[in-house]
Amino acid sequence: MFSPKFVALVQALRGLPSVGQKTAQRMALQLLEHDREGAAQLARAIVAALEGIGRCESCRIFSETPVCPVCADNHRDATQLCIVESPTDWLAIEQSGAYQGLYFILSGHLSPLDGIGPEDIGIPELMNRLANSPVEEIIMATSATIEGEATAGYIMDRVDPARYKVTRLAQGVPMGGELEYLDAQTLSLALKSRRSV
Amino acid sequence: MFSPKFVALVQALRGLPSVGQKTAQRMALQLLEHDREGAAQLARAIVAALEGIGRCESCRIFSETPVCPVCADNHRDATQLCIVESPTDWLAIEQSGAYQGLYFILSGHLSPLDGIGPEDIGIPELMNRLANSPVEEIIMATSATIEGEATAGYIMDRVDPARYKVTRLAQGVPMGGELEYLDAQTLSLALKSRRSV
Ligand SMILES: [Zn+2]
Ligand SMILES: [Zn+2]
Repeated sequence: MFSPKFVALVQALRGLPSVGQKTAQRMALQLLEHDREGAAQLARAIVAALEGIGRCESCRIFSETPVCPVCADNHRDATQLCIVESPTDWLAIEQSGAYQGLYFILSGHLSPLDGIGPEDIGIPELMNRLANSPVEEIIMATSATIEGEATAGYIMDRVDPARYKVTRLAQGVPMGGELEYLDAQTLSLALKSRRSV
Repeated sequence: MFSPKFVALVQALRGLPSVGQKTAQRMALQLLEHDREGAAQLARAIVAALEGIGRCESCRIFSETPVCPVCADNHRDATQLCIVESPTDWLAIEQSGAYQGLYFILSGHLSPLDGIGPEDIGIPELMNRLANSPVEEIIMATSATIEGEATAGYIMDRVDPARYKVTRLAQGVPMGGELEYLDAQTLSLALKSRRSV
């Protein structure tokens, strides 16, 4: 009903998380009707992000430099390594302000039924990361879901318990809860009361 | 905390309607982490839309051609002109399938307190549109809000009641309701039972 280029724009906007047909249409109308400069800005920001943002060699977070600012910061405690499932979880922990160690960001969790194995989520890279590092404590901050627990278990089976202290976020994380939806205070508490496993 | 290009992307996404900081972050992460091809597609779709989509000379809806497909369709009834406040309202009526006439799309409604006068919403263009046309019935489909009613009243004061039959959508439109949120059936009924004013 609208022009083909409008339809294509709506279609592309629908690719954004939790954007359905109606919302995508409203977004496209808003961009064309009231915010053409904002739309141009968005297109430029996407292209710049795609071209300029890669992954940190060390922790795999998005980074514009080979090593991200967190990994490059020598005020961070390199003896602690916090393992998370996603950049969103990384962000949630960073924003809590309760953690001063380093990170390793997996690409999700193990899910054998979906054919997602250790290689798909970066576990070999994690093992390399651990091999040549001063890490003493591994903080398993995967989600408190069945898959998150299974992923943590899989990793724990493969690290030397004599060499590393392995901890898990405390019970403050609700069962089935995803880290990215937790408030900073709950996350802070869960980090502070983390326990050995 | 994230890289500057990521922050810029989040900022640009926040310009979309009803997208706050948290949602924008999730969108940016999704695009970079899981959907780089979709992100590139979105950037291209935005640029193509901005470059290729203008306004129909006749009704002012978004169009890739000087005259839009609706205005160019000689199966539509050129004696009826439906006046709406926005492309979204236009879309809602088109999707109801209940209307076969033509349109004129205003840029919103009059709002003297915000300094929005007749010239800002396209009323002079509407008068030109009426001047050289076979229009017999003007259907005022502005929103059932105070501003929508005031806009309809302003236009009605300026068209010759001897020359045009002027109608308004029937009471099916709830008071304070915005057209774009109505279901197609309610809109169909409101159109069918429109009344002379
Ligand atoms: Zn890093
Ligand atoms: Zn037109």
